[in-house]
Amino acid sequence: MTGGNAVVAGPSKTQETNDNHKNSEMTDTVRVVFTPSGRRGEFPVGTPVLTAARKLGVDIDSVCGGRGICGRCKVDPGIGAFAKHGITTDETALSGRTAGETRYAAKRGKLEGGRRLSCQATLQADAVIDVPAESQVHRQVVRKRADERVLDVDPQVKLHYVEVREPDMHDPSGDFRRLAEALASEWDLSGVRPHPAILPGLQIALRKGKWAVTAAVKDGAEVIAVWPGFKDKAYGLAVDVGSTTIAAHLTDLESGAVVAASGAMNPQIRFGEDLMSRVSYSMMNPGGAVEMTAAVREALSQLAADTAAEAGIAPEDILSAVVVGNPVMHHLVLGIDPVELGGAPFALALDEALEIDARTLDWRIAPGASVYVLPCIAGHVGADAAAVALAEAPHKAEEMTLIVDVGTNAEIILGNRHRLLAASSPTGPAFEGAQISSGQRAAPGAIERVRIDPETLEPKFKVIGSDLWSDEDDFAEETRKIGITGICGSGIIEVLAEMFLARLMTEDGVIDGTKGSATDRIVADGRTFSYVLHRPANDADPEIRVTQNDIRAIQLAKAALYAGARLLMDRMETDTVEKVVLAGAFGSHIEPKYAMVLGMIPDCPLDKVIAAGNAAGTGARMALVNKQARAEIEDVVRRIEKVETAVEPAFQAHFVEAMALPHKTADYPNLARAVRLPPKGAATRMPDDATGGRRRRRRAAG
Amino acid sequence: MTGGNAVVAGPSKTQETNDNHKNSEMTDTVRVVFTPSGRRGEFPVGTPVLTAARKLGVDIDSVCGGRGICGRCKVDPGIGAFAKHGITTDETALSGRTAGETRYAAKRGKLEGGRRLSCQATLQADAVIDVPAESQVHRQVVRKRADERVLDVDPQVKLHYVEVREPDMHDPSGDFRRLAEALASEWDLSGVRPHPAILPGLQIALRKGKWAVTAAVKDGAEVIAVWPGFKDKAYGLAVDVGSTTIAAHLTDLESGAVVAASGAMNPQIRFGEDLMSRVSYSMMNPGGAVEMTAAVREALSQLAADTAAEAGIAPEDILSAVVVGNPVMHHLVLGIDPVELGGAPFALALDEALEIDARTLDWRIAPGASVYVLPCIAGHVGADAAAVALAEAPHKAEEMTLIVDVGTNAEIILGNRHRLLAASSPTGPAFEGAQISSGQRAAPGAIERVRIDPETLEPKFKVIGSDLWSDEDDFAEETRKIGITGICGSGIIEVLAEMFLARLMTEDGVIDGTKGSATDRIVADGRTFSYVLHRPANDADPEIRVTQNDIRAIQLAKAALYAGARLLMDRMETDTVEKVVLAGAFGSHIEPKYAMVLGMIPDCPLDKVIAAGNAAGTGARMALVNKQARAEIEDVVRRIEKVETAVEPAFQAHFVEAMALPHKTADYPNLARAVRLPPKGAATRMPDDATGGRRRRRRAAG
Repeated sequence: MTGGNAVVAGPSKTQETNDNHKNSEMTDTVRVVFTPSGRRGEFPVGTPVLTAARKLGVDIDSVCGGRGICGRCKVDPGIGAFAKHGITTDETALSGRTAGETRYAAKRGKLEGGRRLSCQATLQADAVIDVPAESQVHRQVVRKRADERVLDVDPQVKLHYVEVREPDMHDPSGDFRRLAEALASEWDLSGVRPHPAILPGLQIALRKGKWAVTAAVKDGAEVIAVWPGFKDKAYGLAVDVGSTTIAAHLTDLESGAVVAASGAMNPQIRFGEDLMSRVSYSMMNPGGAVEMTAAVREALSQLAADTAAEAGIAPEDILSAVVVGNPVMHHLVLGIDPVELGGAPFALALDEALEIDARTLDWRIAPGASVYVLPCIAGHVGADAAAVALAEAPHKAEEMTLIVDVGTNAEIILGNRHRLLAASSPTGPAFEGAQISSGQRAAPGAIERVRIDPETLEPKFKVIGSDLWSDEDDFAEETRKIGITGICGSGIIEVLAEMFLARLMTEDGVIDGTKGSATDRIVADGRTFSYVLHRPANDADPEIRVTQNDIRAIQLAKAALYAGARLLMDRMETDTVEKVVLAGAFGSHIEPKYAMVLGMIPDCPLDKVIAAGNAAGTGARMALVNKQARAEIEDVVRRIEKVETAVEPAFQAHFVEAMALPHKTADYPNLARAVRLPPKGAATRMPDDATGGRRRRRRAAG
Repeated sequence: MTGGNAVVAGPSKTQETNDNHKNSEMTDTVRVVFTPSGRRGEFPVGTPVLTAARKLGVDIDSVCGGRGICGRCKVDPGIGAFAKHGITTDETALSGRTAGETRYAAKRGKLEGGRRLSCQATLQADAVIDVPAESQVHRQVVRKRADERVLDVDPQVKLHYVEVREPDMHDPSGDFRRLAEALASEWDLSGVRPHPAILPGLQIALRKGKWAVTAAVKDGAEVIAVWPGFKDKAYGLAVDVGSTTIAAHLTDLESGAVVAASGAMNPQIRFGEDLMSRVSYSMMNPGGAVEMTAAVREALSQLAADTAAEAGIAPEDILSAVVVGNPVMHHLVLGIDPVELGGAPFALALDEALEIDARTLDWRIAPGASVYVLPCIAGHVGADAAAVALAEAPHKAEEMTLIVDVGTNAEIILGNRHRLLAASSPTGPAFEGAQISSGQRAAPGAIERVRIDPETLEPKFKVIGSDLWSDEDDFAEETRKIGITGICGSGIIEVLAEMFLARLMTEDGVIDGTKGSATDRIVADGRTFSYVLHRPANDADPEIRVTQNDIRAIQLAKAALYAGARLLMDRMETDTVEKVVLAGAFGSHIEPKYAMVLGMIPDCPLDKVIAAGNAAGTGARMALVNKQARAEIEDVVRRIEKVETAVEPAFQAHFVEAMALPHKTADYPNLARAVRLPPKGAATRMPDDATGGRRRRRRAAG
């Protein structure tokens, strides 16, 4: 009556506790230490391990709310281990296997190596109990690269199993209110509201589940899906909408693991190969943007269906999605005509991040799912670049980092945790094999690797679909079916770099016709020369050659890319970068050495040039499995300084200068240490070089 | 540097102010008092009146943000009026008519009686300035009834005219970000987010409006619509979805005025006349609920189109909507199968209020509009009853108030500001004219008023569509076209009450066959008697009579209604009510006296029995124009104690007792003062009365 409570009830009980150690369940306590957290406490004998863990703030997962169903709360009592923390855990530490655990082991999952369900096993004596990584809520995603950042899994949507009070004539509360009460009392989620999409199925699920359901709760505040009974897997879909391909990763929201992946051609290709032709399509055709929106949205639904089928789940089990893409794709997915992105001042309709109902995008996933769309950085630097920044985290690095995502526009980010700059450069589609005489997309049969013997000037190459070099024994046999059909982006980079290293081409990018006397691979092609990379065995296959025009196209593209990077370096007042990240599918196929020989990127220690693969997709997955990552990238994007290359006079100057390869050796000390660069003017200049030079400068200026 | 500021800058300036009164614009100040608020202050000469008002917290409206476009900020300087507040306002008080005001008067609106635009006129000398009611943001809705509650207009959606910074190559911010900046700087709305529905049209509106647009902002936080240029009217739609009819009121969100109203039959009628037959339809037909949902949603869109057309606006100008309805309608509008409402325990899927995107309901109004659905009180007491409670506000009254909304189920609320109870009673459809031999809906040709001469026992009546009594000269002429087709709910109430007062019927509801000797209007009908209310002039028209079965049907209905009210009075521990509100279309057609003679409602001073008309519709409009009203009704509904009549034994007892009319006169002191009630047993009992009595009790118990 006067402030006393049971725990400190009086001397008599305490006395009893001390005297009759472990004799009375009512008053005895035991010590417990949880590892790896090291949290410790004292609890009455008979306390469930999970209860003790929760009271101590130990991170143990649970979906079923301690009913022995989900198996998420497994712990390892380490019976028989050496004494740790001054405690020896012996057989008497925990209760014997409970009925709940026997039922779990029989019906649901395994209990291996002495593992116990912490919600079922109770404390009986002093114990050190280990919580394995997979039983922690805040797991970490698996890292692929050593330098890849680590991210905790903490998704926006979580599953909660609850038992709901049945309706009663004397209490006319709605079914949802009683579900909300259960979520509040069992999961401490107070005041949840229903997503309208759950309303039609709510009563059916509750009755089918006999008043036990699993609710998917978004942000701890909104019930977005309800299933009868127990459900233990929640999924999300991360999508990178590229101009050419759309890549989707179906992800387990609890583990962060990718359970299925699928890529599809962007069906908008029928409206135009590249971004600008799609913007033009919209300008020329009333309703064109609406058509393109419908096409890309249908593809999103198809990818959801495909990945769901691969994982053996229903598309409606996808509870969350993240979309990234360049600004044009970003706008078209959201139903915004991209016409303003087709001309200066390249105004985005929306640059902020957006969370939007999946149904608004006609996306056939869970009807209560919401879609997070990453922010755009600028009119040509999209949500895909933001995702790359999230994945590569230059804002957390001390190193001056240059990130380039090469596509029709190169998106470029430069900086470190002190300052970040971003720009885009109009590289055009040459790096993707377009505008190249024998160019093609990266597909089986495309030449992707090239070496030229500096003595014989003979090439060897590899094609996609075979691991053999063209001078190896079984090459002809192995490539008979796939053919040798053309040269893809990484192939053209390598062949040009090798031609330069073999002195078949000058630093100005002119094929040295005088080498025609040394090799029959140099052939006249009108007023200029070409290098014959492949002569087919039969007439059906194409001859593959590198023409002077091909080189000009690549020179324009690489000069644009370099000039963009250089402009940001000027702005940053730095002449060097300490790390280069090549993002995107193309970036991950270029060998850093060749990119540098060609002068696509500034000099940098070669081991610090990293192919990040689909970094945009990785960033999308991060935003999917960790809600803090969303706040992080929104903050980073707000802080990035945007540089518009088109209005910077310095960009033009850098561009013209960057046409040559490999510039001054002095600019490339790291590269010069790795390869033997030809001395200046090594190749013999041709009489038409002056013409080529003039043409080059005209195009550069135009 | 040390805390000084311009206003108290030092003695020299103050000195100058005092010395050179009105000579220097830089330092002179004038006094101003705003009425009716009485707020006063001192401002530099040249301060715009609106600026001064805002600084003093005076409530003046504005949509255009002080650009002289909207005319909302008109004030009355009352030039030449007597001195008030110690200030005489003379011609020199305000600047002369400004260019902005001349432009406004020429292009947009009138400036009558010396009114000025407060954003244009500037303070020049001391002034008392009146802010007329129509220039205040917090206007009050017009009251129709003296006792009707007053409500400020303060809608969820408000319009704001802004001028948006143009995009710039050097600042790649999205168009929405710059719109949000303008809303923040001009309207103090910080951090607004876009409704996804505005994104497709945002860039078009900004460019069409030459970077001047009007934005509709919900809750000061979300931009839900954007129009090019200036727009000064925002609309909302309040809808009461009844089982039979759906009523929609298109409302000006700024004035609270109804600008168009439309009613439509509920198209669900083809699936079943009353609520329970629709629930049955859903039970018997898979997909039946989906069909009914589609039907009612289509009707909502049609009503939006109809009312918009009547008001000369586009349906897309409807920015907000409120829906009320009984629980079955509530569920069907939301796409929830009402099957659980068809049987005990009558569990609602959702009882809480809900705000939902209009598009989720396939409602063709502004795509960014949201719909507020009022909370349901219990399984048979719906959002319509909640709306009635909001409109009638028993929770603010000291009087013990009984509110009945009569329909297939009567929804009953009893209480005052101290305590509120609610229940529903299964009255059945008799009050709506169903189950009555000559019954029909309230439509032209239906008898709605009846008087019976207590001496001659001859009736006279009125039909809907004519103002004449049937014994007046031109009645036959005037009703020839509309006909005399049947008797509606209020007509049957009156004829029974008049029959009782004329002693043609006993208090047990038995027609007195012995009166057949006194009038040919009492005729034998098998083993019972009927009263012939109307004999047509020709054979084509129907004879209209009141049969013994008609009386039984009404007795059952009124007994259920009374028993429900009485049950709540028991629970409230009161024997009297101080006010009765008859809500609903039917309630507004019953004369209170007759309702009481029949014993539908408990005794109450007759002048305290109020027909509230479509109180549910009124409540819906309140929730539409005032966002605080939403919080208010949610709070009230949470506090209402729900009483389930079906499980209360006392209900059955009250029901059986309430079959008789008018019960004991002692229970009706107020009624007895108003009309001469027949003494007990006044009519002669018929031999078959005993049989009728037994049958009645069996039915009552069944």
